[in-house]
Amino acid sequence: CIRTRQTQRFNFMSHGTRDYNPKQMAIREKVFNTIIRCFKRHGAETIDTPVFELKETLTGKYGEDSKLIYDLKDQGGELLSLRYDLTVPFARYLAMNKITNIKRYHIAKVYRRDNPAMTRGRYREFYQCDFDIAGQYDAMIPDAECLKIVHEILNELDLGDFRIKVNDRRILDGMFAVCGVPDDKFRTICSTVDKLDKMSWEDVKKEMVNEKGLSEEAADQIGEYVSMQGGMDLAERLLQDHKMSQSKQACAGLSDIKLLFKYLQLFHVTDKVVFDLSLARGLDYYTGVIYEAVLTQAGTVSAANEAQNDTNAEESVSVGSVAGGGRYDGLVGMFDPKGRRVPCVGVSIGIERIFSIMEQKAEKVRTTEVQIMVASAQKNLLEERLQLISELWNAGIKAELMYKKNPKLLSQLQYCEEAGIPLVAILGEQELKDGVVKLRVVATREEV
Amino acid sequence: CIRTRQTQRFNFMSHGTRDYNPKQMAIREKVFNTIIRCFKRHGAETIDTPVFELKETLTGKYGEDSKLIYDLKDQGGELLSLRYDLTVPFARYLAMNKITNIKRYHIAKVYRRDNPAMTRGRYREFYQCDFDIAGQYDAMIPDAECLKIVHEILNELDLGDFRIKVNDRRILDGMFAVCGVPDDKFRTICSTVDKLDKMSWEDVKKEMVNEKGLSEEAADQIGEYVSMQGGMDLAERLLQDHKMSQSKQACAGLSDIKLLFKYLQLFHVTDKVVFDLSLARGLDYYTGVIYEAVLTQAGTVSAANEAQNDTNAEESVSVGSVAGGGRYDGLVGMFDPKGRRVPCVGVSIGIERIFSIMEQKAEKVRTTEVQIMVASAQKNLLEERLQLISELWNAGIKAELMYKKNPKLLSQLQYCEEAGIPLVAILGEQELKDGVVKLRVVATREEV
Repeated sequence: CIRTRQTQRFNFMSHGTRDYNPKQMAIREKVFNTIIRCFKRHGAETIDTPVFELKETLTGKYGEDSKLIYDLKDQGGELLSLRYDLTVPFARYLAMNKITNIKRYHIAKVYRRDNPAMTRGRYREFYQCDFDIAGQYDAMIPDAECLKIVHEILNELDLGDFRIKVNDRRILDGMFAVCGVPDDKFRTICSTVDKLDKMSWEDVKKEMVNEKGLSEEAADQIGEYVSMQGGMDLAERLLQDHKMSQSKQACAGLSDIKLLFKYLQLFHVTDKVVFDLSLARGLDYYTGVIYEAVLTQAGTVSAANEAQNDTNAEESVSVGSVAGGGRYDGLVGMFDPKGRRVPCVGVSIGIERIFSIMEQKAEKVRTTEVQIMVASAQKNLLEERLQLISELWNAGIKAELMYKKNPKLLSQLQYCEEAGIPLVAILGEQELKDGVVKLRVVATREEV
Repeated sequence: CIRTRQTQRFNFMSHGTRDYNPKQMAIREKVFNTIIRCFKRHGAETIDTPVFELKETLTGKYGEDSKLIYDLKDQGGELLSLRYDLTVPFARYLAMNKITNIKRYHIAKVYRRDNPAMTRGRYREFYQCDFDIAGQYDAMIPDAECLKIVHEILNELDLGDFRIKVNDRRILDGMFAVCGVPDDKFRTICSTVDKLDKMSWEDVKKEMVNEKGLSEEAADQIGEYVSMQGGMDLAERLLQDHKMSQSKQACAGLSDIKLLFKYLQLFHVTDKVVFDLSLARGLDYYTGVIYEAVLTQAGTVSAANEAQNDTNAEESVSVGSVAGGGRYDGLVGMFDPKGRRVPCVGVSIGIERIFSIMEQKAEKVRTTEVQIMVASAQKNLLEERLQLISELWNAGIKAELMYKKNPKLLSQLQYCEEAGIPLVAILGEQELKDGVVKLRVVATREEV
């Protein structure tokens, strides 16, 4: 029975997409309000960009994930693709308008031809909530603010405990260099390291050696580093590490991690932040610090929920990533005719995952804000109801009536109870004669 | 010079699309808030649907405009198209979820491969703001509410004077029948009548006779009717008209127009409403009452603005349509396996046109809501600034600082003036010793 209904449902819709019903929208509005409030508290402006970009704008920005880009059909005119994230359109916007500094947020949908895992909140169409700071500033100040924002949002949304992993692309690159990875393999080996949150080290090593042709010795050396986690102390220790300290790049990254932790201490958020050398992030464009926030509890609930529908065991390992980002100092320059660089750092809130957690937690949610129902106790009072409700609307009061000439009083009252409308104004012959309106509190039946 | 800059700009973007900058977004937010407040006042819930639908979902719903639908490239999987409006996805949503009554609004972008007229606010990607009432109700009550909503929104947005034209598809069809239009030409002749707001009657007649093969006699009879405008009295007169009264359909439509005007009188909005037989609306799916709101003043400004860029003279005739809609009782049934009908009526606010009017009117607009800047009077106070701003953020206060270790006091104060930040907290050695913070009102330089 459920199966039939599902087949019928999916008949009409594209795979991996979904509608939001009014209850989901009410939750979504609440989550957006919390996030936007935080972004505005930090002084961000907002912009919007089109859902499709010229295909060439997206080319060469996403590494191995480029195959997931949706293209539009060539109907004569330009070749277009649906945006894959909000970061590349942001960089294109900055270059096109010659903007050298801005703090902006952008909340909009992006598109990926990925395998959907809809019970876990992974869709082909999904929202991104991005906050970015562009401009030439002193090291790690904007970066620290991004992490503070993640901390504030996850606290306010009250999703359970979380941890924010940080690392730096320069540390990864330096590590690859001192471990003997050839220069031209940095990016692809980095993509493999990125899978450590979904795969065991053994499988990651296999991919490095068998698929990507890395020497077993190099892989083992990487394996030692990527198991390391800590705080400012670990950054200090690695600055002394005889191998790591040979890489200038790694040292620059490690010094910045130290500075970042200093600022995070002033923000009182270091309790949630871990310097984790296994964090890689898949995207090509990162150039400095990178980070990712994971929920440390909520995963269990949805992993269990998912077991019925999702046979792909790999996926249930990686639960709980709810925010991610980093520094990308080279991206804007790729769109500038003269290659002028605008350093950027930003964070993207994994809002779909948050929606699905909130939906699981949500109990009764009102989907409208109606304050009063205009009802009638007798027949032939439609005109009087229309006149009264018009006055209420004009006074800014949220009001409804039933679209019937002669609705029963009982059905009007039942509607109020179902919809959670607190008050009902009841029109009757006697009240009209007296020039008054009877007002009743739906829950207590008290009349005023 | 301007030309070069424009060429450079459009290089990076798809024709007919645009970015919204922070100032435009601030205006957009204000307009959306007004409209959403109105929709919520009328008890609407909201839903969202994916940006693309299965291609077949859109097929056969838009008449001659179907050629404007954007298709996605076939990358293996389903054939997809970008949504053309929000009405068809809404009908698909109702049928799929077996919803028989709902009052919902939906604000989202839609896509049309049309000739853009960007100075007039016509883009290939643009917002629609739809409010619809679905359900089997007594005649004209929800229809009247839709017009009341248009009236409220246009009043609140204060765009200048406006007029709401109403007509009924059944009156048009009845008129075509009594004027001798063959049944199979109703829809195509209706599309031609729809052009009366952009073309003269002579040109419309030419299209009917030369392109669509209508007899000149029939065309002339149509010409007489479509020149008629009035109120409830016109509906009454046409009910007595010896030709029109031969059509049952037309009579049903005319009676409903009378009823509609009666309800609109109770809402006190008839001053803006005109029964206009030339109103046709292009879309195939309307089955009953139709309406369109036009600004009667604002058009002049933007038509002049456009003259430089737009050589298409036809377009400047049609200025000022800012809302439209009607009844579509058959659309949901097209998506139901058993053809079950759900009567619907709705209105779409032409928000892009409204944005462009508001942008022209807008003067200085703040693009952030920052209340206070955390500044320093001396060097080496970054840590103290970070600590203070963190406390402000945690207390919910909207605050900014400059991302420099040692910013000059003057440049911090200048930033406040440019961004319109009202307060500045100035940290200095002495204040830190005393355990206080100096607070200054930026505009008056008063210290507290």
